[in-house]
Amino acid sequence: MSTLLEPRASLLEAIAGPADLKRLSLPELKALADEIREEVIQCVSRTGGHLASNLGIVEITLGLHYVFDSPQDKILWDVGHQAYVHKMLTGRREQFATLRQHKGLSGFINPLESEHDSFIAGHSSTATSLAVGMAIARDHLGEDYKVIAVVGDGGLTGGMALEAINHLGHIQRNVLIILNDNEMSISENLGGLSQYMKRLKQTFFYSDIKKKIDEIEIELEGVKLHPAIRELIGAVKRQAKERFETPGIVFEKLGINYSGPVDGHDVAAVVDALQKVKDRSAPQILHLVTQKGKGFAPAEQDAIKYHGVPAFTPEKVEPDRPKVKTYSDAFTQALIDIAEVEPHLVAITPATAEGSGLVRFGKAYPDRFFDVAICEQHAVTMAAGMAKQGLIPVVSIYSTFLQRAMDQLIHDVSILNLPVIFGIDRGGLVEDGETHQGVFDIAYLRSIPNLTVVAPKDALELRDMVYTAVMERRGPFAIRFPRDKAVNGDARHPFEKLDYKTWETVNAGHDIVLLAYGSMVATAIEALPLLQAAGLDPTIVNARSCKPLDETALSRFVLDPSLKIVTLEEGCLAGGFGAAVLEWAAQKRLSAPGASQAPVACLGIPDRFVEHGARSILLDLNGLSPGKIADFVIKIARHS
Amino acid sequence: MSTLLEPRASLLEAIAGPADLKRLSLPELKALADEIREEVIQCVSRTGGHLASNLGIVEITLGLHYVFDSPQDKILWDVGHQAYVHKMLTGRREQFATLRQHKGLSGFINPLESEHDSFIAGHSSTATSLAVGMAIARDHLGEDYKVIAVVGDGGLTGGMALEAINHLGHIQRNVLIILNDNEMSISENLGGLSQYMKRLKQTFFYSDIKKKIDEIEIELEGVKLHPAIRELIGAVKRQAKERFETPGIVFEKLGINYSGPVDGHDVAAVVDALQKVKDRSAPQILHLVTQKGKGFAPAEQDAIKYHGVPAFTPEKVEPDRPKVKTYSDAFTQALIDIAEVEPHLVAITPATAEGSGLVRFGKAYPDRFFDVAICEQHAVTMAAGMAKQGLIPVVSIYSTFLQRAMDQLIHDVSILNLPVIFGIDRGGLVEDGETHQGVFDIAYLRSIPNLTVVAPKDALELRDMVYTAVMERRGPFAIRFPRDKAVNGDARHPFEKLDYKTWETVNAGHDIVLLAYGSMVATAIEALPLLQAAGLDPTIVNARSCKPLDETALSRFVLDPSLKIVTLEEGCLAGGFGAAVLEWAAQKRLSAPGASQAPVACLGIPDRFVEHGARSILLDLNGLSPGKIADFVIKIARHS
Repeated sequence: MSTLLEPRASLLEAIAGPADLKRLSLPELKALADEIREEVIQCVSRTGGHLASNLGIVEITLGLHYVFDSPQDKILWDVGHQAYVHKMLTGRREQFATLRQHKGLSGFINPLESEHDSFIAGHSSTATSLAVGMAIARDHLGEDYKVIAVVGDGGLTGGMALEAINHLGHIQRNVLIILNDNEMSISENLGGLSQYMKRLKQTFFYSDIKKKIDEIEIELEGVKLHPAIRELIGAVKRQAKERFETPGIVFEKLGINYSGPVDGHDVAAVVDALQKVKDRSAPQILHLVTQKGKGFAPAEQDAIKYHGVPAFTPEKVEPDRPKVKTYSDAFTQALIDIAEVEPHLVAITPATAEGSGLVRFGKAYPDRFFDVAICEQHAVTMAAGMAKQGLIPVVSIYSTFLQRAMDQLIHDVSILNLPVIFGIDRGGLVEDGETHQGVFDIAYLRSIPNLTVVAPKDALELRDMVYTAVMERRGPFAIRFPRDKAVNGDARHPFEKLDYKTWETVNAGHDIVLLAYGSMVATAIEALPLLQAAGLDPTIVNARSCKPLDETALSRFVLDPSLKIVTLEEGCLAGGFGAAVLEWAAQKRLSAPGASQAPVACLGIPDRFVEHGARSILLDLNGLSPGKIADFVIKIARHS
Repeated sequence: MSTLLEPRASLLEAIAGPADLKRLSLPELKALADEIREEVIQCVSRTGGHLASNLGIVEITLGLHYVFDSPQDKILWDVGHQAYVHKMLTGRREQFATLRQHKGLSGFINPLESEHDSFIAGHSSTATSLAVGMAIARDHLGEDYKVIAVVGDGGLTGGMALEAINHLGHIQRNVLIILNDNEMSISENLGGLSQYMKRLKQTFFYSDIKKKIDEIEIELEGVKLHPAIRELIGAVKRQAKERFETPGIVFEKLGINYSGPVDGHDVAAVVDALQKVKDRSAPQILHLVTQKGKGFAPAEQDAIKYHGVPAFTPEKVEPDRPKVKTYSDAFTQALIDIAEVEPHLVAITPATAEGSGLVRFGKAYPDRFFDVAICEQHAVTMAAGMAKQGLIPVVSIYSTFLQRAMDQLIHDVSILNLPVIFGIDRGGLVEDGETHQGVFDIAYLRSIPNLTVVAPKDALELRDMVYTAVMERRGPFAIRFPRDKAVNGDARHPFEKLDYKTWETVNAGHDIVLLAYGSMVATAIEALPLLQAAGLDPTIVNARSCKPLDETALSRFVLDPSLKIVTLEEGCLAGGFGAAVLEWAAQKRLSAPGASQAPVACLGIPDRFVEHGARSILLDLNGLSPGKIADFVIKIARHS
């Protein structure tokens, strides 16, 4: 491993762009692959990032840039976090020290970063749809370039990828799909489409046909035949076996030509396979088999652990994962503890078992744990079916991914008022950037009838909210928490039913009232000394329920015109918690038109997409750090 | 056809519930099918409703209730509008006179209506997910019943159906899927999954294997062989052909046992096929082939026309479709007219070509028209790919179905600020009920950065909005219109670029200002005489842009404390247009804290799901009829 520390990137150093790559011989390409692998390990060990998937895709990336001409040809990386090698080969190698830092190199692809990035990609399963759209545009405009979607077997489980393949087979446009089959999506136990397809024992047709051909061979054993006939029979049998041991037949039935599987770590084989399909005009899928973490032993052995990692020391096997308790940990622990007393509780994750911490629940209760692959829509509607028949399903889902299941939440869960509990992880700002910001959930969840929408101030309250939702079972219940170290993450107390509809005053003061939602309670408390230093004595309220609102508390504050009210939320201002308070105040004015009201000012995420960078930086830039909040409140307080 | 007018429903009259069905012989079942078909035609001809799909599913429904035991066994109808026969057999025959009327029989299924309705279903492609969830619940609770999902070939194109099938194949629960293959989804030209699968010429494997077996046969012609060998060779060939002419192999690769195809109009064959699979514990798909409109010649010939129909006279071939111009018509006409001058405009629909009127665009510009099947996610992301590469895609989509593509709208369209135009049809209340109400779009669209969100007051403005969006190409642009007769639907004027960001005063008055969004402009104008009769002289504003707001107009009104403001919108109050005005006013108060403001009151859809019934009734019940609006405004105006 010692050579890893001093990469001798002689070939890589000469690669300023894809054109330089094309001058290399195949043996040089292979040597370059080794260099790149070392470089990826070095870079990610310093900054953290996605490791295993990028080690797995080295040769595929080299092959694509060797055979095709980016940016003329459009390479679409499904889930942009597998594009580090692509970035290195397209002039961004020097910027890797700034990977995922604010204003630094993005961890995903983005056309604003490079002309070689054909689109944006943070969420999975979009590349084939984009490719179909681009191919139609190309054909319509009479242009000439290749459109290539690079899709993992995990991404292929997402419904929209299957929609796109179905459509592509129908319209027969010139699109090349590279299936990067590493037999594993983010989590290990969900199985990708290709894995399902390998279960030959359930392929009744294949076993039938094989048996019959075997019988023919036996019957013909004594018969004197032309060797060509025996050869033909062998060919039929071989071909049946080959086709059925790959997902080929399924794609061909859908109208997509299939070739493969090819060893995706044999760069010469990859180049050869790409050259063979390069000039085909019908839709084509090329099946390449790779290994996540390839070339770095610890990542090969545990690709899940090395999927996304913080900085680490390559010589040490363990990544330096910080040992702090996050809200995800607290949520999972709550589920594990409640499952012990509530046998009907089951947990569902759409391929985020690792990120959400739910993998621990799966180990504790394997029969009550359902990782459904990258299928947010199915996850939510399946939960509705479970709830209808008497289970208590808890769907753990990131805020940004719940956007994929909004219709299912309305149509399948909320109309029938079914008791499905949502643990909405990564609510608020995250370091990944525009594609992953969980800032819209408060606004869209609040508009759905029957739904309860809450956010805890700390880990203890999170536990009690989950417990209360499970015990009440009154209807859909959404609990939101940020991707962060949990306040009171190490504290424990027996579960208590929480009167979550009643807001909690965490600091009693005068003149100005901070109505803080979820993560903003702790931030408001951090701002308190700054406010006190400015001579203010604010009331801080843990406004833990956004829907329903605490009307008693609101009446006390809003109907007192001597007060000023500031709402604080880690979500978009448009339609969010602050808007809910404004709507309530406007409604109240109808029944008491003469009464004066306290003015309400709202702080939250403004109307723009938020870039990548450390969470603390992003919060500050959006006016949601303790300091910025204090400045805002002081300004409000001093208004005449 | 004369017998149709006097149905002799002797068998049907004796069916109070599924138990009565089981006493019939197979010939009686067949006779009952004829009676039911006549009854369906009679009922739908009187009230309007879904005709073709219900005529197609008569025998399947009879078979299911004959073989299985509802409500103990759970039958899940994917898209509930195919459940009329099911309703007739489960004690709701007498209520068909009230079909789709307010407080009458729902056009969809609903457990609140009958214990035989296992779930709610208005949107497509949900049944398999629900079935998986219910099967898991059943197994977890140690219960014993069958879960059956009845899915059309159209519903199978939806991504979430494919997600669920994939998952079911993985977890191997006892679920029976009935594939009702009528070779047609709502629109004719999209092709269902089964249709794609039938394109044998693209199935390279099958043609290869067939060719080779043919060669073997030719080679063996002169050879003396045991007849059993020839039989075996024939069996291999036959089986290959059979399997490849059905979607069977694809499902078996995914881990679902396949049987069929069976003639879905031969009730004895359906019963036999169901009995064969009844006791299988592995996941099973039974492929039944049916014809939409079966038994009613006009509907057989044009199932699209007879998909959903108003009342009609069975003896006449034409349904009495009213000849009024709807907003859908105006939108389609605008696209056709603009396409003539803008060659880069293309139109996309997710299987709603008929309902949206877009079928006419498809006839005018077949190469620029893309019906992608029931694939809202793919439709939107494909449009993003098209826009990125230089086309001007217009996505025609119902408000309620756009909920399925919210993530794609955020992640794939809006982050890159791509010029995709959305024609959001059926925005607001529709007669179909809870599952189809288009009331959430204003709220969720408004929270997405980069998006322009507008609604026209009439057909002329709709035309100009589409034209302006196409000419500007500045970013994502959402234009919302109701399912209704268009105001000024017959008027024509040359296209004009519209300053949509500036609101328009349609009635200049004093004291009270009505800010009306979209459909509410015409309603406010209708309310005007009522207001004038009460001595009021209101200003009515066509607040055509919800995002961005017209800040100049808002300043003029909100900063004048002598005024009172009422916002009017056909959408949910939570986070909607009214909330946008409240947010703007609160923001304005920060920069001018001393200034008094006009009070703002908001009218819109309250926080509950709205039932089915005539649009005018639903609007009135939700306070949005001219009379109710006048009452509200008069009350506000008289407030001290």
